[in-house]
Amino acid sequence: MQANNQYAFGLIGLGVMGRNFILNVAEKGFTALGYDLDPGQVEALKREGGNLDRVNATNSLEAFVQGLETPRKIMLLVPAGPIVDSVIEELLPLVSAGDLIIDGGNSFFRDTDRREAYLKEKNIHFFGAGVSGGAEGARRGPSLMPGGDRDAYREVQPIFEAVAAKFEGTPCVAYLGPKSAGNYVKMVHNGIEYGLMQLTAEAYDLLRRAGGLGNAEIQEVFARWNRGRLQSFLVEISSEILGRKDDLDSGDLIDKVRDQGKQKGTGKWTSQNAMDLGIPVPTIDIAVSMRAISAFKQDRERADTLFERPGAGSVDTEK
Amino acid sequence: MQANNQYAFGLIGLGVMGRNFILNVAEKGFTALGYDLDPGQVEALKREGGNLDRVNATNSLEAFVQGLETPRKIMLLVPAGPIVDSVIEELLPLVSAGDLIIDGGNSFFRDTDRREAYLKEKNIHFFGAGVSGGAEGARRGPSLMPGGDRDAYREVQPIFEAVAAKFEGTPCVAYLGPKSAGNYVKMVHNGIEYGLMQLTAEAYDLLRRAGGLGNAEIQEVFARWNRGRLQSFLVEISSEILGRKDDLDSGDLIDKVRDQGKQKGTGKWTSQNAMDLGIPVPTIDIAVSMRAISAFKQDRERADTLFERPGAGSVDTEK
Amino acid sequence: MQANNQYAFGLIGLGVMGRNFILNVAEKGFTALGYDLDPGQVEALKREGGNLDRVNATNSLEAFVQGLETPRKIMLLVPAGPIVDSVIEELLPLVSAGDLIIDGGNSFFRDTDRREAYLKEKNIHFFGAGVSGGAEGARRGPSLMPGGDRDAYREVQPIFEAVAAKFEGTPCVAYLGPKSAGNYVKMVHNGIEYGLMQLTAEAYDLLRRAGGLGNAEIQEVFARWNRGRLQSFLVEISSEILGRKDDLDSGDLIDKVRDQGKQKGTGKWTSQNAMDLGIPVPTIDIAVSMRAISAFKQDRERADTLFERPGAGSVDTEK
Amino acid sequence: MQANNQYAFGLIGLGVMGRNFILNVAEKGFTALGYDLDPGQVEALKREGGNLDRVNATNSLEAFVQGLETPRKIMLLVPAGPIVDSVIEELLPLVSAGDLIIDGGNSFFRDTDRREAYLKEKNIHFFGAGVSGGAEGARRGPSLMPGGDRDAYREVQPIFEAVAAKFEGTPCVAYLGPKSAGNYVKMVHNGIEYGLMQLTAEAYDLLRRAGGLGNAEIQEVFARWNRGRLQSFLVEISSEILGRKDDLDSGDLIDKVRDQGKQKGTGKWTSQNAMDLGIPVPTIDIAVSMRAISAFKQDRERADTLFERPGAGSVDTEK
Repeated sequence: MQANNQYAFGLIGLGVMGRNFILNVAEKGFTALGYDLDPGQVEALKREGGNLDRVNATNSLEAFVQGLETPRKIMLLVPAGPIVDSVIEELLPLVSAGDLIIDGGNSFFRDTDRREAYLKEKNIHFFGAGVSGGAEGARRGPSLMPGGDRDAYREVQPIFEAVAAKFEGTPCVAYLGPKSAGNYVKMVHNGIEYGLMQLTAEAYDLLRRAGGLGNAEIQEVFARWNRGRLQSFLVEISSEILGRKDDLDSGDLIDKVRDQGKQKGTGKWTSQNAMDLGIPVPTIDIAVSMRAISAFKQDRERADTLFERPGAGSVDTEK
Repeated sequence: MQANNQYAFGLIGLGVMGRNFILNVAEKGFTALGYDLDPGQVEALKREGGNLDRVNATNSLEAFVQGLETPRKIMLLVPAGPIVDSVIEELLPLVSAGDLIIDGGNSFFRDTDRREAYLKEKNIHFFGAGVSGGAEGARRGPSLMPGGDRDAYREVQPIFEAVAAKFEGTPCVAYLGPKSAGNYVKMVHNGIEYGLMQLTAEAYDLLRRAGGLGNAEIQEVFARWNRGRLQSFLVEISSEILGRKDDLDSGDLIDKVRDQGKQKGTGKWTSQNAMDLGIPVPTIDIAVSMRAISAFKQDRERADTLFERPGAGSVDTEK
Repeated sequence: MQANNQYAFGLIGLGVMGRNFILNVAEKGFTALGYDLDPGQVEALKREGGNLDRVNATNSLEAFVQGLETPRKIMLLVPAGPIVDSVIEELLPLVSAGDLIIDGGNSFFRDTDRREAYLKEKNIHFFGAGVSGGAEGARRGPSLMPGGDRDAYREVQPIFEAVAAKFEGTPCVAYLGPKSAGNYVKMVHNGIEYGLMQLTAEAYDLLRRAGGLGNAEIQEVFARWNRGRLQSFLVEISSEILGRKDDLDSGDLIDKVRDQGKQKGTGKWTSQNAMDLGIPVPTIDIAVSMRAISAFKQDRERADTLFERPGAGSVDTEK
Repeated sequence: MQANNQYAFGLIGLGVMGRNFILNVAEKGFTALGYDLDPGQVEALKREGGNLDRVNATNSLEAFVQGLETPRKIMLLVPAGPIVDSVIEELLPLVSAGDLIIDGGNSFFRDTDRREAYLKEKNIHFFGAGVSGGAEGARRGPSLMPGGDRDAYREVQPIFEAVAAKFEGTPCVAYLGPKSAGNYVKMVHNGIEYGLMQLTAEAYDLLRRAGGLGNAEIQEVFARWNRGRLQSFLVEISSEILGRKDDLDSGDLIDKVRDQGKQKGTGKWTSQNAMDLGIPVPTIDIAVSMRAISAFKQDRERADTLFERPGAGSVDTEK
């Protein structure tokens, strides 16, 4: 391990996503130090990192903070919610004025605003910087959406631009504005994605039930749409999925997927925030409702089992 | 002009779209004959076509029909609606059993079913085959979505595969099923597109009003989204449009666009047909309604001019 | 039976609804003659009608038509759809110029327009006149929504005003305009009702799941709402239903109702017609979609039985 | 003024609504004391109240609190939001363990939960008790929806049951459950009302634009609907409004109403809370969005004035 104040970048949270991100940083030529409470994760990173002068890890938060160059650039890849607040509270006695704390999670933008204001009083710069691309993206080149103090951002900008994915030579990272601007844009991004998934499902349903097309034919239709005005990543992967066989059983994989979705919240926040602001986003609202309907599947089925009675028939509510 | 029964392909409707399509056919090595009532369009095609043995045109429907190899392959590129029916009636006394009539327009699928049944009784094969890609696509490689009798389709398949766009070597054309299957898929395609445009508009609105981003920043956000899970043709062109300056005036082009859309019907048909079939497509329904709301702009404004009275204030409907 | 041309009013279709309507007419002092193909229905009416000079019935269409005063007032209470057309065709050789044919069913307004135009050429007046209130309303006082030729309407107006329900002395019947105006208003009426039922269901769901209220408490809440700004017939009957016990089993009746609705079409027509006209009715659209979702219950359940595999878990579509 | 601890009921906020409520309490036989910072409101109540032994008022908060029997029953009729919190803070040093503070405003249910928990620690009982019926209802008989501690509720129950409206002899008041149950039910009530208003507007729009009916005819149609399955308070008042003439100008009042709604929040909260709970309420969501669209009227118009250019035409987005 290097002497104090020697690592250029610090990362808290050494799960797969965190390890991949810090290895990416190191590979681009920056020294980097990781921290995790769990010694197993610390060892995993040391093993994967190879040259310990370049990338190292510790389960002592003091050693971690002291190991970083000032102003410190400390990124959090921990679950969104109260854990972010506890990590901040633990860091506060250890960091110095002018340091940067960067939240890389999918945090609610109002939480980011609150944390930014709280840390600003203590002269700590706080950033919300959504990371997209999953674990593989973190390793090979994520897309980054940072927001926070513009001047302080310059401290971490060279690292972010180095690790980000490149599109025709340009790094997929841009400073999006003060405070929670980065989280806000990520939230809208996910709201749109809800809508796109709902639309794709409606298209599939129409072609299947009404058009009478089979999975292979819909795959063909989606593949063709993907070469025209509807060309998109989601249409493309939908087309691929439609062609997959179930490798544990006979038949198509798509026919084994449960009609039940979950929500982590970002799409829902988009609708709720738009309502607070009086901005109409009706198709996103509907996509959120349809996902909620799909989630009630088990309740409905349990209710049926309990209550159905032969001969009751369905209720005709129209006269 | 060649002798009777010598042209491999016939096309009715020599507007820009029709001329481009027939020139594309000729360029792929097929002889082709065009027909239009308007001598100007006929001359335009002859001029653009060069070698009149390869591609020729006439404003006599009799000469046109007699000029084609049997079974004749006659494609219509005329406006959807009653014009398709009149052209069919004019053709009927001239064509022979086994000939193919192919409607290349955006026809309502029920009209195609009706025409197919009507012509089947007369031993004429009728196809609905949506052409997408616009006038430029017609010339360089359209996407084709034919539906109709499978055996008869083989007669025109080599021509369609030759003229269609190629994607990694595969022609963007596939037989979609009997009767109006081609029009049906095109209709659903356009319904989805309505939804995508509405979603894109909602995203823009949120980022602009709520996020406080300017056009240049939203352009940047859309460009970034286009490199991730939201990658799509519509996000890409939206990003491009956001960067355009108004070349007749100062400012951004986007700020000069009226918030008013029109409808030709295909998106609306998707919703209406889904309702007939009891298939829920709520986000497409909403997109159709939002487009209708945008279209009422002038009515609302005229009403305001007539009726507004100073000091009336707005009505607070909640207590 | 009276001599020819002696009955003031004729009714075709002697099911419960039809018999009730004609008995209502007779009770108000008009002579009335019924017709039905089925001799059983004819006998049922004769038995229920008592004085055969006042109300009589036949299963001969010729005798029926000849029995009516001219201009004849012939009302049809038969199922909406092609049966209306066949009855009209059977009547045509028998009726005379100036006679009235009145369709009392829930016909699609475009069908009424078509029939009205067809019969106008033959100097027969055709009316679409929705009857609401069910079988009991037909007997004791229905609500009537006639549309058609205003002058010809005067012939039947005294009968309609006599049989209709009275509200503070005024008969619940009004001429609504030419052609299909009556059916159109009835269609919009049913579209609104779809929306109200969907809203009531959403309220119940929120109070039950989110508020944690039991059926008895929701009944109380609905009863209270029914005394304020939400006062309405549907809230009132919803409150009553919530208080009913299952008389074949233990527990509340509401918990035994299947979450599955059917559609006869009038609500759906409202949405489809609004789309044709470019008039946005998004809450009705959504109510139609939600009813369609409820109808797919069995398909979904069957699919689950076939395909579910232990341990598959639900799909988390968000990252 | 009576001696200390002599008034049975205290009310803070002597606007029209507050004065009416306290006069209603006094009229039912309870002694009541009002408080308002504004001496004008205090004098107004004294004047209107007549017998000062029965109902009195003060602008000293100390005198007010000391004037009440213990356990004190103090009702707040002040605007929802931070004012409720400040009044609570001012009351805290003056009240005693076991006293009741009752918020009669349209408070957000989460605020009520927070206040209830905060005051519980101090042994003060806090109630959220929505009052509906407006200023006139407050005087003659409001509808009350209290929630809070069930045992403590018994202290105020006789007063609430005495002042509330009666429906067939039963007072329109019921204890709805612990904490914010009363505010929650009121919130859902208002969410439903948003939906009903949107549906009524859609019906009007269809009948007017599509059906071509005038205001007088729609009034007639609504009046008729109000006698059938659509019978409701909102349809009834809509019918009445449609018949009103503009008394400052010529024409119908309805044609002078701006197509622009405002929101105070309760409907919006219903949608947002349902999303948090994963309960689908799509028609309420859409009603909230449509109200937001209507509110943007002025922005759209200002934008048009600035940017419209002759000859630009409308954009046809479909191909």
